Amino acid sequence: MHKAVILLSGGLDSATTLYIAREEGYRCYCLTFSYGQRHDRELAAARAIAEHAGVPIEIITIALPWGGSVLLDKNTDLPTDRADCPRSIPPTYVPARNTIFLSFAASFAEAIGADAIFIGANQIDYSGYPDCRSGYFDVWQELLRFGTKAGTEGHVPVIVAPLLYMTKENIIARGSELGVPFALTWSCYRGGQHPCGECDSCRFRAMGFARAGREDPLIAVHNPERDR
Amino acid sequence: MHKAVILLSGGLDSATTLYIAREEGYRCYCLTFSYGQRHDRELAAARAIAEHAGVPIEIITIALPWGGSVLLDKNTDLPTDRADCPRSIPPTYVPARNTIFLSFAASFAEAIGADAIFIGANQIDYSGYPDCRSGYFDVWQELLRFGTKAGTEGHVPVIVAPLLYMTKENIIARGSELGVPFALTWSCYRGGQHPCGECDSCRFRAMGFARAGREDPLIAVHNPERDR
Repeated sequence: MHKAVILLSGGLDSATTLYIAREEGYRCYCLTFSYGQRHDRELAAARAIAEHAGVPIEIITIALPWGGSVLLDKNTDLPTDRADCPRSIPPTYVPARNTIFLSFAASFAEAIGADAIFIGANQIDYSGYPDCRSGYFDVWQELLRFGTKAGTEGHVPVIVAPLLYMTKENIIARGSELGVPFALTWSCYRGGQHPCGECDSCRFRAMGFARAGREDPLIAVHNPERDR
Repeated sequence: MHKAVILLSGGLDSATTLYIAREEGYRCYCLTFSYGQRHDRELAAARAIAEHAGVPIEIITIALPWGGSVLLDKNTDLPTDRADCPRSIPPTYVPARNTIFLSFAASFAEAIGADAIFIGANQIDYSGYPDCRSGYFDVWQELLRFGTKAGTEGHVPVIVAPLLYMTKENIIARGSELGVPFALTWSCYRGGQHPCGECDSCRFRAMGFARAGREDPLIAVHNPERDR
């Protein structure tokens, strides 16, 4: 059975990515990072999703003491207008975050002899991060080929970003077909007990569920009063 | 004053690299990793070298729970024949290690607006690691250009590997000119209190000093009886 390392943040994109990899027949190994994110609530979500899927998870703790992102600092304001104005790179960008995540994934994949690394990056309804674009993953593929022992031996894991060209709506529809436990996923950047509903991440999520014509089960969990 | 992030392991190559960057006029920020290496003695060396050079140092602790290297496991044998037989990739190779180190350096460089990342990689008298070759750094340069905010804004830090084509002998000669405190550096892989003198790293070091016609000051420190 082929192995795959899955970068699982705890959000709905990465959860759907895990279920796609499982559907494709991979034996999945999840990899999650505690990197000082203000929304570390997503770590519990990642654990719950991996448990629901019945796959192992490694949570790696790293420090980025140099900061450089509002996502690393609870005392700063979060942007809320990304869905309306998708142009510049927003202040939630964390310097080289996906590069760090993929470097650990490369190490993990090489150590266990994995054939693939799955990442839930998306360049359609996305946050404008440069490390979520297709060309970026092409360069990574070259880096794995050149800079690892596995690569020099001709066994390069393939980087798979199955959501890259999907809309949020399509991701949610596909995830629903696969039985992704959306109620366990976490998207909100703010780091509170309940989704704020205002940050870019909450807004993209709400837009996706609305366009898919589906109820977000997370909202029902967090707003039990709503439908009364 | 231009800033540079220096990957400082505590060995003589990275120490010399730091002194070269300083000589070139960079304001240097050292970056060192505690990654479960059996020779964590090198961390104290890195601190001492940075202090001697009067530059700040960040020591980042990471876990690589998947292993995959004899350098991460004190209960395995270390190779001792690299200097004689420099062909295959030795078991001291750590999966994607330089890729992980460079990814953190990229994040650090971006957060502080650095113009360069210095790494003491060497492909002449080297250990046969695929992530120490020139082409590897070319791919990295492309990754920084494509996958970072700094890159999209046209401010890509340059990856500088000044020792890439130097022999160990030349590195030691150059380091001596620059006043590198070789007595503070640490090369031995074995992780004991004194250099073992037998592992590949000790052997390359000894060969370099012998060819440079110089005394290794570290040996005098650890074998005070020798010359009596």
